[in-house]
Amino acid sequence: MRVMGIDCGTGYTGYGVVELCRDGKLLCLTCGAVKLSARESMSARLAIIFKQLGAIIQEHRPDNVAIEDVFYALNVKSALKLGQVRGVAMLAASSAGLQVSEYSPLTIKSAVVGYGRAEKQQVQHMVTQLLNLTEIPEPPDAADALAIAICHLHTSATLERHRAAVGG
Amino acid sequence: MRVMGIDCGTGYTGYGVVELCRDGKLLCLTCGAVKLSARESMSARLAIIFKQLGAIIQEHRPDNVAIEDVFYALNVKSALKLGQVRGVAMLAASSAGLQVSEYSPLTIKSAVVGYGRAEKQQVQHMVTQLLNLTEIPEPPDAADALAIAICHLHTSATLERHRAAVGG
Repeated sequence: MRVMGIDCGTGYTGYGVVELCRDGKLLCLTCGAVKLSARESMSARLAIIFKQLGAIIQEHRPDNVAIEDVFYALNVKSALKLGQVRGVAMLAASSAGLQVSEYSPLTIKSAVVGYGRAEKQQVQHMVTQLLNLTEIPEPPDAADALAIAICHLHTSATLERHRAAVGG
Repeated sequence: MRVMGIDCGTGYTGYGVVELCRDGKLLCLTCGAVKLSARESMSARLAIIFKQLGAIIQEHRPDNVAIEDVFYALNVKSALKLGQVRGVAMLAASSAGLQVSEYSPLTIKSAVVGYGRAEKQQVQHMVTQLLNLTEIPEPPDAADALAIAICHLHTSATLERHRAAVGG
């Protein structure tokens, strides 16, 4: 199973594609961030995000897309801007026929670190360990996107086990 | 000059295309609303908006797209949702190579009614009059979208006159 995590932001939008291998290991296929220039108009910026995320989806063919469901710690104006980026990211997924799963920051931290109130650095450290990387992915938005993908894979695997147990 | 107004909403997203004729008259070319079913996933809803707005743009070939710049009277959660719709509407415009202009509710009401604190019904009434329609456009989101388009046309015309006066 292959999942693309997207960490939406109005400055940087991180992405990361993670594969859950048959032996249970997690493999990072790609990660990075779309940098948005404040000099561009918002509609031009959204077009760049849509194009770049679409290209990553075409190249790495994830089975699912996962994004962070965040709405606190925002004011109304920044929520509206973040929503615009989110809408375009979700559209990139649905245009490729993919489902979008949303996870709260608490769920993501719990899935990756085992502790919902973990610090950002702890999440980045665990992402690096779980994916067997030699260094912390840069920019931080890329690491966050990988954490979202890992969260989806862990959650799906747990659901599968649960279904199998109930079914058997 | 031909302008498409879009009134973004998470339930209905209104649209209206208005042409400013050579004789100064305003002509409504089309108006309506994309209705979003709450039964669909958000990413599926965004795909429907993108497709339908894109189809209207292809059919009526506006020179510009105008949207309402609203962020008050919203809570953070609804701002995030509205932002998602807005992002996709802006992407529909930029995908067709069109610029997006944003106007505050105050500017739109002033341009259409001549009074920034006008009631919704007054705006709908003036839209009907200015476009020489036999009845108020339905749903209300369609009338609001036409008001946004009229605002852009009035604002552009004023700017043109100003430029001409300064130039001459």
